[in-house]
Amino acid sequence: MDIMEALFTRRSIRRYTGEPVSDGDIKLLLNAGFSAPSANNRQPWHFIVVRDRNTVEEIAARHPYAKMLTQAGCGIVVCGDTKKQEREGFLIEDCSAAIENILLAAHGLGLGAVWCGLYPVQERAQVVADILNIPPDIIPVGLVVVGHTDEKGRSVDRFDEKKIHYDKWRAQD
Amino acid sequence: MDIMEALFTRRSIRRYTGEPVSDGDIKLLLNAGFSAPSANNRQPWHFIVVRDRNTVEEIAARHPYAKMLTQAGCGIVVCGDTKKQEREGFLIEDCSAAIENILLAAHGLGLGAVWCGLYPVQERAQVVADILNIPPDIIPVGLVVVGHTDEKGRSVDRFDEKKIHYDKWRAQD
Repeated sequence: MDIMEALFTRRSIRRYTGEPVSDGDIKLLLNAGFSAPSANNRQPWHFIVVRDRNTVEEIAARHPYAKMLTQAGCGIVVCGDTKKQEREGFLIEDCSAAIENILLAAHGLGLGAVWCGLYPVQERAQVVADILNIPPDIIPVGLVVVGHTDEKGRSVDRFDEKKIHYDKWRAQD
Repeated sequence: MDIMEALFTRRSIRRYTGEPVSDGDIKLLLNAGFSAPSANNRQPWHFIVVRDRNTVEEIAARHPYAKMLTQAGCGIVVCGDTKKQEREGFLIEDCSAAIENILLAAHGLGLGAVWCGLYPVQERAQVVADILNIPPDIIPVGLVVVGHTDEKGRSVDRFDEKKIHYDKWRAQD
């Protein structure tokens, strides 16, 4: 799939067939994450691939918006290492770029994916940290649910001229 | 260019020919930004396209790591609207996903780009806000410098098994 088509047709997918994601695809998804840019090239991310059935069900039960994880069967928790990047804002930006790369790679591989927010919602991040034994100096930023899609993501046009400014901020009407 | 190839070969580009970026390419870059996912689909971003020569030079002079902006001739400042998304962490994540999309689109279009950090460095964000008249409830998250590339971005392999965990966090040696 062409990169521009991938960018314009990627959608959040929340229905899955349950067919397992292959190890080869997991590796490609992670490699996409590793390929993101990062502030000062610190690459401060970690990836936790969650496929164990009990773990999947526990996360789905305790995260308010990740029920689809049980059907997808696979999640990738993208975490930021505060020892590698002390500026929390940069850490979140770096991990977000990695997450976006994983979402696009999933789409490119014919899979579906959705970004379930963790940071900055303390209780959601803590639930995932507890379940996965994530230490306190590692921030779970987002959970990417990924699987074989069971829905057609319809392309949408979000282009909005009112959000585009030229050379200076232009106050909205 | 294939999406996977784009993900794996995108690099930060800091040398530019100075040839202007066309209006058509700008529109495609912005559309890529608009196509990012956002928390609760709030789409809380704004894009300021900076090509005015004086503005370009003023930003380059006052941002410590954006000198290449003068050669590139074009920057896109991606901002988050705190009225649309009150949770600052989500706002930063959404804008970061939009920035990553723009970087990938630039690569796909045969252009080069680099993400110059603004948020969370208060003085850098404030400089850009001052120059572009950005109001206080809008956060300038990042500056994407984009132009016609004058260097070959070498593909690098950042894959690191030590940063991959399966089902639980595994402490590093």
